[in-house]
Amino acid sequence: MTPSEHAELALLLEVSGAPKPGNVDRERDLPDLRFGQFLAGAVGARAGLERAADPDEPLGEAFETAVAGMADAAGTNTQFGCLLLLTPLVRTAATGDLTPERASEVTEATTVADAAGFYRAFEHTDVAVGDPPEGAAELDVRRGANAVPALRERDLTLYDVMALGADGDANAREWTSGFPWVFDAAERIHADDGPLLDRAADAFLGLLAEAPDTLVVTEHGEAVAEEVRERAEALVDAPEAEVRAFAADLVERGVNPGTTADLTAAALFVALERGGVSVAGAAEVSVRE
Amino acid sequence: MTPSEHAELALLLEVSGAPKPGNVDRERDLPDLRFGQFLAGAVGARAGLERAADPDEPLGEAFETAVAGMADAAGTNTQFGCLLLLTPLVRTAATGDLTPERASEVTEATTVADAAGFYRAFEHTDVAVGDPPEGAAELDVRRGANAVPALRERDLTLYDVMALGADGDANAREWTSGFPWVFDAAERIHADDGPLLDRAADAFLGLLAEAPDTLVVTEHGEAVAEEVRERAEALVDAPEAEVRAFAADLVERGVNPGTTADLTAAALFVALERGGVSVAGAAEVSVRE
Repeated sequence: MTPSEHAELALLLEVSGAPKPGNVDRERDLPDLRFGQFLAGAVGARAGLERAADPDEPLGEAFETAVAGMADAAGTNTQFGCLLLLTPLVRTAATGDLTPERASEVTEATTVADAAGFYRAFEHTDVAVGDPPEGAAELDVRRGANAVPALRERDLTLYDVMALGADGDANAREWTSGFPWVFDAAERIHADDGPLLDRAADAFLGLLAEAPDTLVVTEHGEAVAEEVRERAEALVDAPEAEVRAFAADLVERGVNPGTTADLTAAALFVALERGGVSVAGAAEVSVRE
Repeated sequence: MTPSEHAELALLLEVSGAPKPGNVDRERDLPDLRFGQFLAGAVGARAGLERAADPDEPLGEAFETAVAGMADAAGTNTQFGCLLLLTPLVRTAATGDLTPERASEVTEATTVADAAGFYRAFEHTDVAVGDPPEGAAELDVRRGANAVPALRERDLTLYDVMALGADGDANAREWTSGFPWVFDAAERIHADDGPLLDRAADAFLGLLAEAPDTLVVTEHGEAVAEEVRERAEALVDAPEAEVRAFAADLVERGVNPGTTADLTAAALFVALERGGVSVAGAAEVSVRE
């Protein structure tokens, strides 16, 4: 499979892995976010992922194309954060070895035009984001294309924009530091056993246990995010019924660890690219009989 | 979305619709056939579906490419029959109106080279098929490319090959008669309500009630296939719990109405192409809480 095919499959495996507390998965829809919308979003994103695989295509435009295709197909924002991580990783895999060093070279090589593509992507769908850092109001991503003159004036590349957001967003932090969590989680997916769908759910819980989910911080504050992290940590080796109870509780409270899902999708992509993992084999999770 | 995107999405929606008695769905894996393999198969088939959308590409080669990509990604046969129906329907949609008349023109225009592509597709994966009609042993599809000289000698197009199999295989019958069940089921999907994933499950049960599944006939005989049809007919408006009990029973008996799943995927494609159906909206099926 090509890198863009692996990226699309990673999106599909991410949403299907279950139980994935607080998120849409094979076993659960959220009231305003449906499993079928994630399937459509993954299909719609593929054309942009293919552009990301082509080194002659600007990375920011590739990302914007992926987001526009996703939003058009899904009718909502299903995988914006996943695509933000996958776009440079697809470019890295399509042009040579998929290593943290080469991925860093890809993000560091981004331009002001790439940053403009990133901002335009926000015009295609609603994205939950925090307030911009102090003194950066004119760079608020929610301004979409209106922020592009400020980007040009300050000569900010997409890498620079991510560096501005790295404090409050795990995806931005990955972008500016060689994707350490993504590559670590990919290693764990490799070392795990069973079919990839089960490993996806394990990887999600492991990442959730590692640090507070930054989308949960944005939406519910640091205390809630830390409480969720501690509960995930206590459940890493717990029986699945306990993980399911945690999942039901998060959904009831409207707590959606979306950034952890983004990291999981990116880790699945890296694992698929490295090979030696399979979608076949007996599932550990017995779905409803 | 383009026809090849709609076709890939139709494959994903088909396998996800639940409950779909006897088949892999969002709620159930089979012992040797996993949900994740269908996701991978759909992604892997896309390149062939894109060839099918290009009128300059031979239809038989497009089908072979789709099957090879599916088998490579899934590691098994997940969607051979679906792709057999989708290939000419994608070609039809990509070149004009998607009507039974135009779909018939597409299948009737196939060549001996297209037939050879169809036979070569059997070399990429195992397909459950019945014995060939009397006097047609050298055209047994299980011979793969070895049957190509016989095709050439008898000057048989892909349409002709399908006509030979139309007695015992609903997919072949669709191919040679303007896809009547597919278009009818697409109409019902349109008239149904709720998100597409629920309509997919309804369409499957409706098709299963309509006539004996020809894969079940091949694998278990006509009596079993007719019994399955009668039970499906009795359950069309039944509470979902009863449909689930039927599903559990079919899985226990190893009865897999695969041809009905193929027809469902093709009907979903037609419904997506016609528009006015959505992956959003509240699911009727509440997955495990």
